[in-house]
Amino acid sequence: MLEALKKKVLEANLMLPKYNLVTFTWGNVSGIDREKGLVVIKPSGVKYTEMKAEDMVVLDLEGNVVEGDLNPSSDTPTHLVLYKSFKNIKGIVHTHSPWAVSFAQAGINIPAAGTTQGDYFYGDIPVTRKMTVEEITGEYEKETGKVIVETFVNNNINPDYVPGVLVNDHGPFTWGKDPENAVHNSVVLEEVAKMTYHTLQLNPENIRMDKCLLDKHFYRKHGANSYYGQNKK
Amino acid sequence: MLEALKKKVLEANLMLPKYNLVTFTWGNVSGIDREKGLVVIKPSGVKYTEMKAEDMVVLDLEGNVVEGDLNPSSDTPTHLVLYKSFKNIKGIVHTHSPWAVSFAQAGINIPAAGTTQGDYFYGDIPVTRKMTVEEITGEYEKETGKVIVETFVNNNINPDYVPGVLVNDHGPFTWGKDPENAVHNSVVLEEVAKMTYHTLQLNPENIRMDKCLLDKHFYRKHGANSYYGQNKK
Amino acid sequence: MLEALKKKVLEANLMLPKYNLVTFTWGNVSGIDREKGLVVIKPSGVKYTEMKAEDMVVLDLEGNVVEGDLNPSSDTPTHLVLYKSFKNIKGIVHTHSPWAVSFAQAGINIPAAGTTQGDYFYGDIPVTRKMTVEEITGEYEKETGKVIVETFVNNNINPDYVPGVLVNDHGPFTWGKDPENAVHNSVVLEEVAKMTYHTLQLNPENIRMDKCLLDKHFYRKHGANSYYGQNKK
Amino acid sequence: MLEALKKKVLEANLMLPKYNLVTFTWGNVSGIDREKGLVVIKPSGVKYTEMKAEDMVVLDLEGNVVEGDLNPSSDTPTHLVLYKSFKNIKGIVHTHSPWAVSFAQAGINIPAAGTTQGDYFYGDIPVTRKMTVEEITGEYEKETGKVIVETFVNNNINPDYVPGVLVNDHGPFTWGKDPENAVHNSVVLEEVAKMTYHTLQLNPENIRMDKCLLDKHFYRKHGANSYYGQNKK
Repeated sequence: MLEALKKKVLEANLMLPKYNLVTFTWGNVSGIDREKGLVVIKPSGVKYTEMKAEDMVVLDLEGNVVEGDLNPSSDTPTHLVLYKSFKNIKGIVHTHSPWAVSFAQAGINIPAAGTTQGDYFYGDIPVTRKMTVEEITGEYEKETGKVIVETFVNNNINPDYVPGVLVNDHGPFTWGKDPENAVHNSVVLEEVAKMTYHTLQLNPENIRMDKCLLDKHFYRKHGANSYYGQNKK
Repeated sequence: MLEALKKKVLEANLMLPKYNLVTFTWGNVSGIDREKGLVVIKPSGVKYTEMKAEDMVVLDLEGNVVEGDLNPSSDTPTHLVLYKSFKNIKGIVHTHSPWAVSFAQAGINIPAAGTTQGDYFYGDIPVTRKMTVEEITGEYEKETGKVIVETFVNNNINPDYVPGVLVNDHGPFTWGKDPENAVHNSVVLEEVAKMTYHTLQLNPENIRMDKCLLDKHFYRKHGANSYYGQNKK
Repeated sequence: MLEALKKKVLEANLMLPKYNLVTFTWGNVSGIDREKGLVVIKPSGVKYTEMKAEDMVVLDLEGNVVEGDLNPSSDTPTHLVLYKSFKNIKGIVHTHSPWAVSFAQAGINIPAAGTTQGDYFYGDIPVTRKMTVEEITGEYEKETGKVIVETFVNNNINPDYVPGVLVNDHGPFTWGKDPENAVHNSVVLEEVAKMTYHTLQLNPENIRMDKCLLDKHFYRKHGANSYYGQNKK
Repeated sequence: MLEALKKKVLEANLMLPKYNLVTFTWGNVSGIDREKGLVVIKPSGVKYTEMKAEDMVVLDLEGNVVEGDLNPSSDTPTHLVLYKSFKNIKGIVHTHSPWAVSFAQAGINIPAAGTTQGDYFYGDIPVTRKMTVEEITGEYEKETGKVIVETFVNNNINPDYVPGVLVNDHGPFTWGKDPENAVHNSVVLEEVAKMTYHTLQLNPENIRMDKCLLDKHFYRKHGANSYYGQNKK
């Protein structure tokens, strides 16, 4: 079942080492079939060089394994919370990409410092609050998803416009319209983390770009009036 | 038409990923046939691995597409302003190369700190002022070109001697005597941004090299008395 | 003799250049057969591209060469002290990987700043004290092992839970349940050194993660209640 | 003539891009036949991918071209001064490797912070003073050699023990017992510049290792009592 989605999820997982986003098995990608309500995710702790499409695990949104012989990624409950809360997303990525982790460990947002970020993220990439002892010792991976959702709700951020987050002292999650797009956003997040780290060392004053420039770049690529690429011709 | 120039522009575009100057489609190279007044530029949002010479778009200097089925790069109006204002240049490159962007986001020049820069740029690589709301919400890409030209005019910088600029909160543009030379200057700009970032962290005092050393290195490679390479034998 | 272990030690040594942990011959891996009390180690100063399994040197725990025509790594006495003191380890790695060396030269621990480190190291990766003149001019490599052991004893650190150390002004040693696992820990150490260096530049306050989060991540992957990977299904 | 040396010099030049020490043509290696008093050096501004052994230029120590159709490297007079002053060296390298240039532009020594440097350089890697207007506008490349020699003489540094230097606001020169060894030292210099840059950001206090540790590591690999590698068995 879901052979096409399994193949897409496999291919998106293989993009992680290709784009230098993961060391060893430190990352996972999932995809969802919204009509069937089924999620396909990478198995836990399996090497990228050995993974096949049939190794992908299929679960329902409550976490019941519907198909697959291997354990799903230990981060699966986080993915499920995000799919349930962010209704438009169809792919999710988690990595420990090093520049993103540097910000996550520092507990600070990646500020929207320039147009590279503005082309894909409509504002800062937020960091969550630290998780509580109760959350960590409870259903940890599920609570991780909940603290991400809380970050977007409390700060009134649209997850379709800011497709990524930093979990405090942990690392990034990104999402998108399909698994490949979620990986694409993960690459962008890592690249802007690197750029903006260096900008902060050169000149931390007025780090954010003007709102007007952010609007221009984000809407140049997104929404009804976008004019980037070949779609509009 | 312009088959030779299309091939050169394609090859120069393919140098961008080869020299690690671009992620995804974040860059574009153009070339100009000065006699015919026609510009050849990369299409918008097309993957480097899939581009062919016949995908290159041909435009006149007013931006009218003369040949090509694809949309030209969304940055085309910036290129056109530069070709019209900087009369000697025949190739232009725009990238989001990360070290250059770090300076652009910081809003500071890349100071002429050593001979690596002096071999190719006769002084600082300037950053433009921030663009105004009117410029951003108006003909943005054209205004981007105009603010670049303003930077060179107001600071009395010769664009043939300083073949590159940082657009504030955005990224670098470089140019040269042909598309390949413009990419070459883009590689140099990225490399000196990296070096000088680290120098600024080690010792920000007296960051600029002596004028005399700058003269020596720039004119060793440029102008009537140059003696680098095989040309003079 | 010990052909299987020699092959494992060779393969683990070849992982060092593959994971960019060594320049030239700056690294060595050993393995131990605990039943026989014999150690297999890389020969000194031999190129990775030329090494074969039969070049590996076999020694007893007192340092007597039992088999092999080449000199063992000059760091052999350090390995032997560690095997004798840390009873559960079966593989050891020494490198001059650059991020780890940066911390070793600074004389500071790599603080447990986030879950990437917590997944493999149960706390800070400690730096040894500086060695004394007597230690350096005496049996230097043996004393290097002893100062490592002292660091773990004096700070009450369990070497099975913190499988690595920084030797002051020198570089990292890591260990594990076999040679490959020791290299794995060396890769992790280098990666967290890089991440946490950048975190310290962004925000040195409260650099360590909460104890509770460290417990969660370490025991998610280690011990009786671990649930990462495919082992438990 | 000197076919074997030409081949060695070519191969050493090709190591520069292999070890990421050069961008474009920014580097050159030479070798000397001390008995014949003839120097073999890379031609100026020729691409590494196109160079052949027969392109190498042969000169005497006064700079007269003895064989070769191409212009020698523009840095040739610097090499000649070094060969004449440092009697034991038989290979020289110049690059613009980025970490070394970062220190050169900052005008500060690479301090002997740890054993990686101590294994190859017996102390700091010194930076020259800035050159005077007279030196720069005079026989610039020859004066560059002279200011290097002055640095070693005035600071009583033995060039056989410290086989490299940073020319202020310019970049590194290294040397060795043959062209390959000179490149080896260039790789080490770049690597320790990178490591020690990061150490200086983490903890600039007491940056230098103890003299005793420096002695230990340098003499472990050099001189009559060395015991690293396979030579002594």
